[in-house]
Amino acid sequence: MTVKPTAATREPVATVDTAAIGAGAQEIPDLCFDFDRRRRTGLDETVFAQGKSAAQLDAILTLAHSRGAALLLTRLSVEKYTLLADRWQVSLDYCALSQTAFFAFQTPAAAAPPRVAVVAAGTSDAPVAREAERTLRFNGIGAMCFIDVGVAGLWRLTRSLDEISRFPVVIAVAGMDAALPTVLGGLIGSLIIAVPTSVGYGVATGGHTALNAILASCASGITCVNIDNGYGAACAALRALNSSKPA
Amino acid sequence: MTVKPTAATREPVATVDTAAIGAGAQEIPDLCFDFDRRRRTGLDETVFAQGKSAAQLDAILTLAHSRGAALLLTRLSVEKYTLLADRWQVSLDYCALSQTAFFAFQTPAAAAPPRVAVVAAGTSDAPVAREAERTLRFNGIGAMCFIDVGVAGLWRLTRSLDEISRFPVVIAVAGMDAALPTVLGGLIGSLIIAVPTSVGYGVATGGHTALNAILASCASGITCVNIDNGYGAACAALRALNSSKPA
Amino acid sequence: MTVKPTAATREPVATVDTAAIGAGAQEIPDLCFDFDRRRRTGLDETVFAQGKSAAQLDAILTLAHSRGAALLLTRLSVEKYTLLADRWQVSLDYCALSQTAFFAFQTPAAAAPPRVAVVAAGTSDAPVAREAERTLRFNGIGAMCFIDVGVAGLWRLTRSLDEISRFPVVIAVAGMDAALPTVLGGLIGSLIIAVPTSVGYGVATGGHTALNAILASCASGITCVNIDNGYGAACAALRALNSSKPA
Amino acid sequence: MTVKPTAATREPVATVDTAAIGAGAQEIPDLCFDFDRRRRTGLDETVFAQGKSAAQLDAILTLAHSRGAALLLTRLSVEKYTLLADRWQVSLDYCALSQTAFFAFQTPAAAAPPRVAVVAAGTSDAPVAREAERTLRFNGIGAMCFIDVGVAGLWRLTRSLDEISRFPVVIAVAGMDAALPTVLGGLIGSLIIAVPTSVGYGVATGGHTALNAILASCASGITCVNIDNGYGAACAALRALNSSKPA
Amino acid sequence: MTVKPTAATREPVATVDTAAIGAGAQEIPDLCFDFDRRRRTGLDETVFAQGKSAAQLDAILTLAHSRGAALLLTRLSVEKYTLLADRWQVSLDYCALSQTAFFAFQTPAAAAPPRVAVVAAGTSDAPVAREAERTLRFNGIGAMCFIDVGVAGLWRLTRSLDEISRFPVVIAVAGMDAALPTVLGGLIGSLIIAVPTSVGYGVATGGHTALNAILASCASGITCVNIDNGYGAACAALRALNSSKPA
Amino acid sequence: MTVKPTAATREPVATVDTAAIGAGAQEIPDLCFDFDRRRRTGLDETVFAQGKSAAQLDAILTLAHSRGAALLLTRLSVEKYTLLADRWQVSLDYCALSQTAFFAFQTPAAAAPPRVAVVAAGTSDAPVAREAERTLRFNGIGAMCFIDVGVAGLWRLTRSLDEISRFPVVIAVAGMDAALPTVLGGLIGSLIIAVPTSVGYGVATGGHTALNAILASCASGITCVNIDNGYGAACAALRALNSSKPA
Amino acid sequence: MTVKPTAATREPVATVDTAAIGAGAQEIPDLCFDFDRRRRTGLDETVFAQGKSAAQLDAILTLAHSRGAALLLTRLSVEKYTLLADRWQVSLDYCALSQTAFFAFQTPAAAAPPRVAVVAAGTSDAPVAREAERTLRFNGIGAMCFIDVGVAGLWRLTRSLDEISRFPVVIAVAGMDAALPTVLGGLIGSLIIAVPTSVGYGVATGGHTALNAILASCASGITCVNIDNGYGAACAALRALNSSKPA
Amino acid sequence: MTVKPTAATREPVATVDTAAIGAGAQEIPDLCFDFDRRRRTGLDETVFAQGKSAAQLDAILTLAHSRGAALLLTRLSVEKYTLLADRWQVSLDYCALSQTAFFAFQTPAAAAPPRVAVVAAGTSDAPVAREAERTLRFNGIGAMCFIDVGVAGLWRLTRSLDEISRFPVVIAVAGMDAALPTVLGGLIGSLIIAVPTSVGYGVATGGHTALNAILASCASGITCVNIDNGYGAACAALRALNSSKPA
Repeated sequence: MTVKPTAATREPVATVDTAAIGAGAQEIPDLCFDFDRRRRTGLDETVFAQGKSAAQLDAILTLAHSRGAALLLTRLSVEKYTLLADRWQVSLDYCALSQTAFFAFQTPAAAAPPRVAVVAAGTSDAPVAREAERTLRFNGIGAMCFIDVGVAGLWRLTRSLDEISRFPVVIAVAGMDAALPTVLGGLIGSLIIAVPTSVGYGVATGGHTALNAILASCASGITCVNIDNGYGAACAALRALNSSKPA
Repeated sequence: MTVKPTAATREPVATVDTAAIGAGAQEIPDLCFDFDRRRRTGLDETVFAQGKSAAQLDAILTLAHSRGAALLLTRLSVEKYTLLADRWQVSLDYCALSQTAFFAFQTPAAAAPPRVAVVAAGTSDAPVAREAERTLRFNGIGAMCFIDVGVAGLWRLTRSLDEISRFPVVIAVAGMDAALPTVLGGLIGSLIIAVPTSVGYGVATGGHTALNAILASCASGITCVNIDNGYGAACAALRALNSSKPA
Repeated sequence: MTVKPTAATREPVATVDTAAIGAGAQEIPDLCFDFDRRRRTGLDETVFAQGKSAAQLDAILTLAHSRGAALLLTRLSVEKYTLLADRWQVSLDYCALSQTAFFAFQTPAAAAPPRVAVVAAGTSDAPVAREAERTLRFNGIGAMCFIDVGVAGLWRLTRSLDEISRFPVVIAVAGMDAALPTVLGGLIGSLIIAVPTSVGYGVATGGHTALNAILASCASGITCVNIDNGYGAACAALRALNSSKPA
Repeated sequence: MTVKPTAATREPVATVDTAAIGAGAQEIPDLCFDFDRRRRTGLDETVFAQGKSAAQLDAILTLAHSRGAALLLTRLSVEKYTLLADRWQVSLDYCALSQTAFFAFQTPAAAAPPRVAVVAAGTSDAPVAREAERTLRFNGIGAMCFIDVGVAGLWRLTRSLDEISRFPVVIAVAGMDAALPTVLGGLIGSLIIAVPTSVGYGVATGGHTALNAILASCASGITCVNIDNGYGAACAALRALNSSKPA
Repeated sequence: MTVKPTAATREPVATVDTAAIGAGAQEIPDLCFDFDRRRRTGLDETVFAQGKSAAQLDAILTLAHSRGAALLLTRLSVEKYTLLADRWQVSLDYCALSQTAFFAFQTPAAAAPPRVAVVAAGTSDAPVAREAERTLRFNGIGAMCFIDVGVAGLWRLTRSLDEISRFPVVIAVAGMDAALPTVLGGLIGSLIIAVPTSVGYGVATGGHTALNAILASCASGITCVNIDNGYGAACAALRALNSSKPA
Repeated sequence: MTVKPTAATREPVATVDTAAIGAGAQEIPDLCFDFDRRRRTGLDETVFAQGKSAAQLDAILTLAHSRGAALLLTRLSVEKYTLLADRWQVSLDYCALSQTAFFAFQTPAAAAPPRVAVVAAGTSDAPVAREAERTLRFNGIGAMCFIDVGVAGLWRLTRSLDEISRFPVVIAVAGMDAALPTVLGGLIGSLIIAVPTSVGYGVATGGHTALNAILASCASGITCVNIDNGYGAACAALRALNSSKPA
Repeated sequence: MTVKPTAATREPVATVDTAAIGAGAQEIPDLCFDFDRRRRTGLDETVFAQGKSAAQLDAILTLAHSRGAALLLTRLSVEKYTLLADRWQVSLDYCALSQTAFFAFQTPAAAAPPRVAVVAAGTSDAPVAREAERTLRFNGIGAMCFIDVGVAGLWRLTRSLDEISRFPVVIAVAGMDAALPTVLGGLIGSLIIAVPTSVGYGVATGGHTALNAILASCASGITCVNIDNGYGAACAALRALNSSKPA
Repeated sequence: MTVKPTAATREPVATVDTAAIGAGAQEIPDLCFDFDRRRRTGLDETVFAQGKSAAQLDAILTLAHSRGAALLLTRLSVEKYTLLADRWQVSLDYCALSQTAFFAFQTPAAAAPPRVAVVAAGTSDAPVAREAERTLRFNGIGAMCFIDVGVAGLWRLTRSLDEISRFPVVIAVAGMDAALPTVLGGLIGSLIIAVPTSVGYGVATGGHTALNAILASCASGITCVNIDNGYGAACAALRALNSSKPA
């Protein structure tokens, strides 16, 4: 397998004409889109909006529009969303809680049954859970959410356990001490992708305690992604679901 | 006080008679086996040998033998292995490199094709890679190993890429800066379970740099387990493979 | 309340004649015993053996013997125990698992019912649990131990929950991700004193993940002591039990 | 003891109809109240207001009002308090210093003597001390506060020592080097629950030095909770006081 | 070689008359310029604008103007730039992306071919890359930028590799897991100066993961500078280029 | 020596009547002044203004005024200064750079020669240097400042070295890599009190690198205080100067 | 540029026949040599001996011998060196101080003048300095060492400064507070590659303080490599020297 | 290359002829003694024995002997001491507790009164305290030790307080939570140089908690040195005592 830019991979490359954005060309770097990524990895290129200006995002959306491409935007704050050009604002399916937006997303004609359970320990973990759920939905996979089922009130989890255990992939979102993935891991056999969240204060600040607790879990076979990375957990779920398909 | 099981859960529980090991009963705690775990999670209870004495391990093996149970032992150092009772030493399938042992393992009659690729960046990562491979084999899943294919010499990886990409699950083992999972993640669509290793010195000491580099990977959907935890990566692979089976 | 050395507190001060130990007097510092501590805090001075030489310990035991005082020794390794003078070795009630020893301990005539539950997540946490249990016993309080009841196999904990919940004080010992105290905290109303242990590898090394997980627990009102500090947890339990006595 | 959702535990569950708050139902997760918690643990469910919107809090208060339930709110900033619906603002007993509020709190007919001493090292530790004091008051326990008695001016502590030592439970609040709990621990026999605070700069930033100093205290039997967690310390005190009651 | 203030080095020293800035002289410290630095190290003194007031910067520019000296300013935010005196604003060549400004910079008569490649992994790394490029330009060295060529889409890098490999010095700018310098290091023989960036969240926050990944690189001979320090990387490149000149 | 509250120490205690400040008495804790501190330690109580409200500071100044006491205020931001009551604003000798204020400070009739050198590596270290200088001045000790003499331009330091070496106490203020105290320590024999500053970015953020570099200095006998703690360095200098006086 | 395994690059690949080493083939991973690296990067593949067994090293030497290849071995401890086969021991040019060995190294006919200065702050930094010097020598570049010239005694450095400043590349090796590179950086214009060392105790343990001090250096354009990585510094120097050669 | 001194600095420099030690000259770096340091800083060069071989130490002692110089050796373990040449062993005044040795030390004819108090919190802090005391003694200053006076038993400190407060310089040695310097700082006015020790386990491991607690002390004007650095504290005390002498 060669990694050279073949004709096939070269074609989809697209360059945002940043000079047209209104800033000096020498100050705005090129963006280098990778519309071929789905063919290689099964995952579309996604726009991480944090750290990009509204002008840059407008240019990106213009480019995607001209190519007829759908886009997922993540970490798009309400403030930045309202700074986008009006025509892009109205055309986005925007969710403030998860700070995600769909561009040119086609709702599937017939809904498939959900294949992923997204389980969140507390209400404060909901933004991350929704980022995962919407990333899955954008990629054609339905998910069912179970929110506020942390183990401090164990019955909240156990009453849903039978239902959760039927999903092949479970995304478990938890902050603070993140005991939820461990308890789940001892009770069900699904693939568990845990997402630590930065919810909390004191030793929980930033989510590092939740991250380490998940990695050190006494339950076997729990996998983990970066703190607050609901998008990454969904991508991992997509990899698992895509790979298990019959060729 | 006894920690015996109630009627509901009693059957699969087994208590090691630690008094028979030769130490004062009040000083050796009970072990509480969970032979029912496979039914719940698809994973057998495994004996983490580190921190257990040879006498305790002998007792555990005696118990498993009496129940006709197979066991996987991990983190069993050569020193401790040679301290086991002779009859257990000869009956174990022991691998010094990965510090794992199979007890009462039945080689399957016909080999199934391997379903997991274990890819290791360097020679020093081999012990962790082998722990993963043998955990899989013990659970009936074959794995193919690709060792010493780190990205500092990129051609070593690219020449095997087509082959690797055909496996539904890839375990990527890497220490130091752990660039291997990121490069893999941009090139293939399989589920990737990365294992950081504690190989290295200076800022690489202990494996934290490798761990963080994996979690911060600019490739989407890479999952991670604890440092040096080849066993955990294999368990996660088993979860993914078990869950994707038709019901 | 004055903190000056009154006649009452000055009397119990005792100085170890370290010159008699055989080392140059200028090189061995004085030890300054606090036999009055029980009156002030309800806790006896305990000898932390780690970092003290066998000669120093022999001198301490000689002093205690001459005063008719009982002593608890903690962190007394087997190696150091065997270096003590023979007469002290035989007179000690030594426990290798917990590395504790009783000197001149009087077994109470009639056993009182145990008032503390010591709950440990795994077999590897047993040394710390036993340190707590023996510290309590030395101070006249019985404890009941529940070992290997971690939440990765939740039924092991729940089958004992009714019994555990009847104790006014519960010492919860757990390493790795230390999910046990959180689950307990949501199910029972007792005072919970959690002890993180240094069991584990990778991110669990040293016990900091367990410590932080306990401090960040999503269950309310869990208290914590230093890593591996079974002695301290027992002392806190003694404070709670002593303080709740009718005056 | 079973942890399944029995009829008894299912009844008190209440769901906030978040769709009525004015946001899209798919973006606001359910809240899952646990009105049965007092029966299990002796502690009411408390609303951690940080990270919840004013609209969510209004919905929660409406729900509690409809059930006739009292509520304690913590981490309710002045800014968020002023955003609540007017009818809830006037009905709350709000304390700006501690950022706590009582909802539907019934002042007891006759005051019981205080049973907890809350001791704070400096003026800057007062918010955390007051959070503890008010959490206790909400749960029917009186507390006496001793503020600005840090050990840099030791006479400030020693002149109150006799009085402090008469309380069965002492909550010791201190930032920076947190020497106060250690000095207290050597002088009194009460249960000491220490709360490190995030007061300070340089190495004291965030409260980690105070936390570690408390955990490493050379005084025996000091327990600790998370940084700035006055609420947690009060809950631990409630556990201790509840557990010591005659059955 | 003596380090005393010789006549030669004393002369270029210049003191900003801060009393003339409008603040009390006792509150504004002297600045001590080092116009002789170029002779010693080949690098001009540069003004680090962060932490300096607009008034201080005005005074510095006045002083440089009176001496006929050119200046490079770094970390000059847009906010601070707009607070400068009008005559200095119009005379600066200011770049908002990199927050750098040239004062009294003479564009060279004839452009020399670029001698440094500045390679950035992502669009978010562009500000740091541009700081390096402009620092080089100010010192008379041209650079060619390759932006958004991170290894998650490896073909983006490989299609430019032949071109990059012809530069004697390559500045590699990357955040998150910073795999770019490692991959480059295995493929080209140039001097590689890597700059970790603070782009990212969770474990990538602040750039420490990128920094450590670069230092632990499994490719040999990668050098590193501080996080976000594009200026420092350019200075190192200047050192390399200056030193290799025939004497 | 007894530490009890004697008549002598009890007298100077003063309580701020916080109820008069306008807030509910139960929400504002008492302040407990220690006007006797100078007799014990030679250092006046100083008001750390950070974390105190303008109302609290007004009350403190009123109390000090009524007692005829002079006060030093530190960490008094410009914003908070302008919120003080007008009569206190005009009566304070306020320095914005160091955020310090003198209240009721008596300029000495005749100036004594300065006894402390305050040496700062860079312009950005000046606020901390001035905090030290003004703390000394308030306590009757003159200091001479040497600003912007960092070792990156070594001649700036060496030309002042003879003068610096004549002071018995040198306060060395430096951020980033803090090489200044080490170089000074190898060249002069004075007591050196180093203050790391939080100047810098990347690995220098927060001043921890400067702090550790000072503590690890290869020059012998360098002492250190907390990051940015110019006040503490001045207090240490006062201790040294007070202690060396003939009795 | 393609990264596929061309005929040219495929040829030099060599596989160590680990089965011949005497261990079970399934337990010893393949080694994948990269004899083509010099053509790509100018640096030979080097054997990092740490973590490899003597048997593995013997096999590697046998392979190199059969191919007529020269090898550099690093981190080869005295203990492991003495375990090698006798014929390899006698054929190695081994240096115990730096733990490096040359295999089949050809001393050049005529010595070229040294082009790199290796400057070490203390005697304890000598092993790292020698690793750098010998790596350079193995690659045909002479180096001059200046040992024990740390800045605590500044005259030791300044008396050699003129000589050092004549080298185009300076490797500066320093532990503890690592002030040496900063002082050098302000005085000379050469490319400076700093190597922090793990010499020291307390905050200097492990070399992290030295590393951070170098990265935060107030001198411009200092580059850095991993702690104790003398080999890497030499490789960086080779990159600089190779790249500056006329094409 | 020689590192010999120039005429200006030549006289006090001495080079150890390391070739005579028996190792290859190219492998053992030169040592560069600084016998002139006392004139500049008032402190003799001291030999830090850790990390130096017995052969190197023998050579150093031979050199010192030939020059008639006295030497202080620190961190000289018992194991290394017994490896020294016999003639040096017998001529050293060696202290195993503090791991220090005096070479050619002249006991002063008449003892001066001690001028420094060395106060240690616990018995385990004695080695560090003795290192300080012996460093002072070697430099002609007597010290009085107060060992095991930690604040957990406050009366142990207060009964010695009047005596301690009479010393102009107090070295306070403490591990764990290091509350001793804070309590001292509020009670006496002497210069306080605190030394954190690495005594303890869990969060106290390595001494970082003690270090941070001292730096964050709520008592004013406490200075600090590196962990376990009794030698450095003594050097700081010498600086203070030397500087306060009348010129």
